[in-house]
Amino acid sequence: MNYQKLFAALLLSASVIWSGNVMAADSAKPKPLVIQEQGSFAVGGTVISNPGTFDPIKRTPEGQTLHGDHAYVFYQIPVNARKLPLVFLHGAGQFSKTWETTPDGREGFQNIFLRRGFGVYLIDQPRRGDAGRSTLPSTITATPDDQFWFGMFRVGNWPDFYPGVQFPRDPEALNQYFRQMTPNTGPYDAGVISDAVAALFNKIGPAILVTHSQGGGPGWITAIKSQKVRAVVAYEPGSGFIFPEGEVPSPMPSSAGPLEASSVPLSDFMQLTKIPIVIYYGDNIPDQPSANPSQDNWRVRLAMARLWADAVNRHGGDVTVVHLPEIGIHGNTHFPFSDMNNVQIADLLSKFLKEKGLD
Amino acid sequence: MNYQKLFAALLLSASVIWSGNVMAADSAKPKPLVIQEQGSFAVGGTVISNPGTFDPIKRTPEGQTLHGDHAYVFYQIPVNARKLPLVFLHGAGQFSKTWETTPDGREGFQNIFLRRGFGVYLIDQPRRGDAGRSTLPSTITATPDDQFWFGMFRVGNWPDFYPGVQFPRDPEALNQYFRQMTPNTGPYDAGVISDAVAALFNKIGPAILVTHSQGGGPGWITAIKSQKVRAVVAYEPGSGFIFPEGEVPSPMPSSAGPLEASSVPLSDFMQLTKIPIVIYYGDNIPDQPSANPSQDNWRVRLAMARLWADAVNRHGGDVTVVHLPEIGIHGNTHFPFSDMNNVQIADLLSKFLKEKGLD
Repeated sequence: MNYQKLFAALLLSASVIWSGNVMAADSAKPKPLVIQEQGSFAVGGTVISNPGTFDPIKRTPEGQTLHGDHAYVFYQIPVNARKLPLVFLHGAGQFSKTWETTPDGREGFQNIFLRRGFGVYLIDQPRRGDAGRSTLPSTITATPDDQFWFGMFRVGNWPDFYPGVQFPRDPEALNQYFRQMTPNTGPYDAGVISDAVAALFNKIGPAILVTHSQGGGPGWITAIKSQKVRAVVAYEPGSGFIFPEGEVPSPMPSSAGPLEASSVPLSDFMQLTKIPIVIYYGDNIPDQPSANPSQDNWRVRLAMARLWADAVNRHGGDVTVVHLPEIGIHGNTHFPFSDMNNVQIADLLSKFLKEKGLD
Repeated sequence: MNYQKLFAALLLSASVIWSGNVMAADSAKPKPLVIQEQGSFAVGGTVISNPGTFDPIKRTPEGQTLHGDHAYVFYQIPVNARKLPLVFLHGAGQFSKTWETTPDGREGFQNIFLRRGFGVYLIDQPRRGDAGRSTLPSTITATPDDQFWFGMFRVGNWPDFYPGVQFPRDPEALNQYFRQMTPNTGPYDAGVISDAVAALFNKIGPAILVTHSQGGGPGWITAIKSQKVRAVVAYEPGSGFIFPEGEVPSPMPSSAGPLEASSVPLSDFMQLTKIPIVIYYGDNIPDQPSANPSQDNWRVRLAMARLWADAVNRHGGDVTVVHLPEIGIHGNTHFPFSDMNNVQIADLLSKFLKEKGLD
C-alpha cells in the first residue's frame, strides 16, 4: 500500500467512525411507539335539567339539560400491553399535560410508560381543562400568580432556582411550565372528581392509579369507591388525607396555615389497607418550621403523609413513603415525573410495580 | 375431475371465501398505529404583569406574571410521514375532541389521517379546554343548552333526529356528544386565536390547516398571518368571512339574525388567493328562508361561503365549496368528520389533497 492508498484508507476509516457516531446519535432518537389502540371519551358526570319544555324556535333555557362534571380521558394501549394499565390524575391547576412532554421537551410518563408496555389513561378531572363542562357556575379571575406557583411547586424562591434543582434553566422551559396551568371551570369538589375517576376504573377494569398533588385526596377516595384500583402511586399528595373516625391527627400548624386531615368510617378506610400504596416526595422540604410558606406547607404535608402511612399500616395496609433525598435522589421539585431526572423516577416506579407483582 | 373431487374443491373454495370474510372482519380491527414521535406543548400567547415586587413570604399578586392566551397542541407524527402534516382547529364550544374518537366510539380524523401517513396536530385554542389560561377574566354560567346545540349542530329538531341523519341513535353516543362541549375560559377573540395558530405554523413549518365551524374565521386570518399555511380545509365555517375593503356583501337576514361579513385590506386578502381552499357543508340546510333559526343560520352561512369563494376566485384564488348533498352525500350534520360516514368524508379530503399535490 502506497501513501496515497494509506491516506485514502485512513480517510475511509475516519469517515466510518464519524458516520458511526452520527448513527449513534441517530439511535438516541427514540424508537417508534407502536399503539394498538388510542382514543378519548368522557366518563362519569351528571345531568342537570331546567324545568319547562324546549322550544327549538325560541331556544330559551327552558326544558334544556346540561351534561357536566364528567372526566375527559385520552388513552393509548401499546401492542402486547401489560395486564394493568396506569391511570394518571393531575393536581391543582394542572391537566393531563402533567404527564406529557416535559417543559424542556423530553418525554414524560405518558411516553415513558407506553414504551415500558403499559396502557396509559390521562385524565382531565371534572371542571378542569378538556373536562370543563361544569354543572355549577364559576368565575375565572385571571389573577397573575406564576411566581406563587414557582415557589409552591418548589422550583425555587422567585427569582432564584434552588441550588441543584432538577429543573431546566432554559427560559423556554419556564415559559412552557407556566403555560401548563389551566383554571377550574367550576368549584373544586373531591367527591365529584372521585366519582368520575371511579367510573373510569369501573369502565376499564383493574388498573393502577397514579396521582399528583391535590389529586392525592380524590385518589384515596377513588380507591374506596372502586375495588378496580389495584395500587395507588401518589406523587407529593397535599391536602385530602383521610383517617378512620376517632384517629384523625390534630391540625398541623405551618407558616402556610394549619394542615387538617379528615375522617371516614373505618369500613371505608379499610379499603385502603387492601392495596399497595407508595408516596413520593421531592427535595427542598424543610424538616424544621420555616417562615417560607411555600416550603413549610410541604413540611407538614410530608409529616401528615407519614402519620397517614402509619395509620393504614397499623390496620394491616401496605403504604411506603419515599422521601427522595433520603434514598440519595436530590433536587426534585413538586413534579418529580417531569424533572430532569424523570427516567430515574420512572425506574423507581417500575421497581415498585415489579416488587408488588403489578407489572 | 370426478364429483367427489369437484365437491371437495367447492368446499375448499367456500372455505377460502368464508375465511376470507373472517379475515376481513378481523382486519376490521385496526392495525397498530406506528408513531415516530408524539408530545404536547403550548404555543403563542402573551404575558401580563402586575406592578410591584413579588414577595415569596407574603405571596400577594404584586409583582407576579400570568402566562396565558397560548394554544395547547397535542401532536403525533407517524413513521414515514408525508411531507405536510394536518393542523386541526375546532369550533365553538369544542376542543380537540372534535377530531378524536367519535361519539359512538369509532376513529375520528386524528386516527384516520395518522393511518394515512399524515402528522396530526390537534389544537385547543386560546381560552378553551387545555389552553384555559386566559389573560382576561371570565364568568362561566353553566346554563343548560344541550338542546340548543342539538339543533344548531343539525342533529335534528329536539327531541327528533332528522330523518336519515348520519348520527348514531345509541343514547350513549348522545351522552358523549354533549360532553364534548367545554366553555370559554376568557373572551372569544379571533385575533388571539389566529396569533397562536400562526405561531404554531411558524414553529412546525409548512402544513395544512383544517378548521371546523367558528374556527373558520381564525383560520382565514391564520392563513394571512403565516405563509406556512399551504391549504385550508374548512368544515362548515360559520361567521368570520373576510372580504377585501369595498367588496363586503350586505348583511344577510335570517331567522337567527343577520349574518355579517367583515373587511380586510386587499393586500391581506390576496394571501388567501395563493393557496387551495376547500369548504364542506353537510345536509339539512334549507335553500329557502326557514322559521327554524338552527337551520336558517346555516342557509345564510352557506350562501355567504359561496359569495366568499367567488370573491377569492375573482382575485385569482382557488376556493371550492362542496355542499355534500349536491354530490350525493346525504344526512351529514355540522360534524361531517365524526358522522357515521366519516371515512367517506375523509376520502373526499384525501382526494382533494392528492389533486392539489399536497399529499
